[in-house]
Amino acid sequence: MSEQQPVAGEGVTARLAAFVTDTRLDQIPAVTQHAAKRALVDVVGVALGAAEEPAVRIAREVARALGGAPQATLWGTAERTSLIHAARVAGIMAHVLDYDDTHLPTILHPSAPVAAAALPVAEWRRASGAELLTAFVVGFEVAARVALSVCPAHYDAGWHVTGTAGVFGAAAAAARLLGLDARHTAWALGAAAAQAAGLREMFGSMCKSLHAGKAAENGVLAALLAREGFTAPAEPLAGRRGFGAVLSTRFDPAALTEALAERWEVHRNAFKPYACGVVTHPAIDAARQLRAQGYEAAALARLELHVHPLVLELCGKRAPQTGLEGKFSVYHCAAVGFLDDAAGPAQFTDAVVRRPDVVALRERVTATADPALAEDQARLVAHLVDGRPVEIFVPHASGTLENPLSDEALAAKFRAVTAPVLGAERAGALLGRLWRLEAEPDAAALAALLAA
Amino acid sequence: MSEQQPVAGEGVTARLAAFVTDTRLDQIPAVTQHAAKRALVDVVGVALGAAEEPAVRIAREVARALGGAPQATLWGTAERTSLIHAARVAGIMAHVLDYDDTHLPTILHPSAPVAAAALPVAEWRRASGAELLTAFVVGFEVAARVALSVCPAHYDAGWHVTGTAGVFGAAAAAARLLGLDARHTAWALGAAAAQAAGLREMFGSMCKSLHAGKAAENGVLAALLAREGFTAPAEPLAGRRGFGAVLSTRFDPAALTEALAERWEVHRNAFKPYACGVVTHPAIDAARQLRAQGYEAAALARLELHVHPLVLELCGKRAPQTGLEGKFSVYHCAAVGFLDDAAGPAQFTDAVVRRPDVVALRERVTATADPALAEDQARLVAHLVDGRPVEIFVPHASGTLENPLSDEALAAKFRAVTAPVLGAERAGALLGRLWRLEAEPDAAALAALLAA
Repeated sequence: MSEQQPVAGEGVTARLAAFVTDTRLDQIPAVTQHAAKRALVDVVGVALGAAEEPAVRIAREVARALGGAPQATLWGTAERTSLIHAARVAGIMAHVLDYDDTHLPTILHPSAPVAAAALPVAEWRRASGAELLTAFVVGFEVAARVALSVCPAHYDAGWHVTGTAGVFGAAAAAARLLGLDARHTAWALGAAAAQAAGLREMFGSMCKSLHAGKAAENGVLAALLAREGFTAPAEPLAGRRGFGAVLSTRFDPAALTEALAERWEVHRNAFKPYACGVVTHPAIDAARQLRAQGYEAAALARLELHVHPLVLELCGKRAPQTGLEGKFSVYHCAAVGFLDDAAGPAQFTDAVVRRPDVVALRERVTATADPALAEDQARLVAHLVDGRPVEIFVPHASGTLENPLSDEALAAKFRAVTAPVLGAERAGALLGRLWRLEAEPDAAALAALLAA
Repeated sequence: MSEQQPVAGEGVTARLAAFVTDTRLDQIPAVTQHAAKRALVDVVGVALGAAEEPAVRIAREVARALGGAPQATLWGTAERTSLIHAARVAGIMAHVLDYDDTHLPTILHPSAPVAAAALPVAEWRRASGAELLTAFVVGFEVAARVALSVCPAHYDAGWHVTGTAGVFGAAAAAARLLGLDARHTAWALGAAAAQAAGLREMFGSMCKSLHAGKAAENGVLAALLAREGFTAPAEPLAGRRGFGAVLSTRFDPAALTEALAERWEVHRNAFKPYACGVVTHPAIDAARQLRAQGYEAAALARLELHVHPLVLELCGKRAPQTGLEGKFSVYHCAAVGFLDDAAGPAQFTDAVVRRPDVVALRERVTATADPALAEDQARLVAHLVDGRPVEIFVPHASGTLENPLSDEALAAKFRAVTAPVLGAERAGALLGRLWRLEAEPDAAALAALLAA
């Protein structure tokens, strides 16, 4: 690929590094700060909600066996562990439910790697909430910028951008919290590029969330190494053999810095109302709307879905056998949306995937790709047993920029996923503290709330 | 890229996994076992020789700060640390001098990631030397096979194959030593694919060796996760969005398994006589031959090198300022080859790169790309101050398959790099134990010798 690549954009890494080190909280618009806090609320919530997932349990056991200095809380437990274990486990937690936020222009899930790196480092450094918030915003921005610079070709080619771009955001946030100067921050971005990876082949297995966990861990490590003087090339992003040239056929270095600190990518971030692939969400909305019209499953002969072509490519599993596979089955998603009026973590367990009424309805769902539909649209034609068709059109799925979750809906989601782990009172207290993060004096005290 | 990729080769991961779990030492030819021990001797030696390199010192400090269970020796120290720290630091040590072995068909440096993963795990499990040797051979083979399946397009596109393919070999060796079954070994290869990365842009910075360190660390982690049931897709290597399809435009799944357990890639492995990029070695040989003819530097007006085009692409730095840059300067390499009759770690310090006689001679070296020359060839025309030309042709550089280092030369290299760290007696004892590795009862006892 490299022959076709531009070598332009020299200097962009230094520019990004200066952005990471120099941005002050008072330079970030209030609405942007709020948007960032929404992202934190969402990602911390879905992470805690995943505390007993098998992938998380395993990752935690591995971390325990490896051991480490008690630097940061192992989320969802009373234990503390080293920064890299804390970051890796938190990153896996944040992404394993397929319930975390999405940077829509790139399909990046930015908050999982960035928050999973930022919070442990902030805890260790006893950073203030304002410092943590600032680090999160700049880390988020860097991850989104890197993703923009290589997508969509990068994603199309098979890279899982949450792992590959996420590590840069994790490194940026960690570097900021460690107080690195611009030179050392640029080295941290270099060490991040050395560790960037992610393959879409992992979808449907536990390794999908390992991308986020590794991106977090590697970002922490990148910052720790850079702090001690571990050198990296001048242009790990824009160099001839750098991240952009290698990992995309359409690297756009301008995307890294254009209107930087003016246009904030956090505004193009979306939150999931449903714990599954974002492309299935319009179909779930449609199924729920059908239920809201008062129909019962016995009345449905067939559900005929019309969806964007990507839905079938990413989530076309006809007969899922596990909860994880259910997330990648638009048929299952529509069935539970109708039957349970929900598609939260509870709808993607192995048991629900095998539930007789779910299987029976799922087998009556068909899905057809329609290139005329946008990714956030779906059309559902329900054929009733009496022969009548009922048609529903979803112009914008819930959770999109055009149809966003309200702060209240986001808070409700947070409570729903965290209360079982923390108890309702603790969950509420944590939520309140997150909404007022800029006033938090000590990230360690905040992190103490993450201990179950 | 993915559109052009074959989706053939289903089943290759299972085949590789079975190879990893089932191969017995008595099925590996004696000459192959010996070749593997040569690789171990070489890589352990160059790793210990790097014990005080800045990159290693930094990586060690970071590992100390993170802390960990005392599972494995931190090479070159009296300390023990967790498996992932031990593996990461050892991988960096093994590769930072640019002095470790090369799998010639692919330019993979296989032993750094594989040994740096295998030895710590073997130490922790108190594996026998035979078990360690078997694990090393199968891990080496897997790394080489993966590299063959994607190179040269993969390397040409900018991937640092030591990081990307190395992690599979590290995971395979660790999986074997952990006694994983075929299913869990296949998952370990999947978790390795999730973490595979490496960018050629890192060359000339400390991050180049971080690729090997991360590949080792990630391989250990992959095996530990897989052991506990952390799932991965069925075909992380050959799947539609898998390692081969994504990371190469010319993925060859057949290379993964063709004549597996019959043709051993360890035989296509080469050892470096010089601590710098392998493409500079013919030029160093030529310079040393010129010196052997009795000429002195004052008699040389100009040294006119003719080299393979890749030499100038990879090692064309005209005026290196640091020891690390000197490794990527064929001009510096030729100058020290002539002046010092050597190109070991001592010739790639910052001080030697700035030594007046070295600078003076370096400035009189020219290098021209000649596509008619092979990579292991060089032609040197020395123009004497009295006007006479002296011509030297190197048909095969020392350290190549056609002109290999003898066991004695390899042992001498080992002693040279390890004695300053371990003392001559300890170095000799360790060397002896490595040569008789299959008889070693306990890897922990062997690893005790790695503690300085």
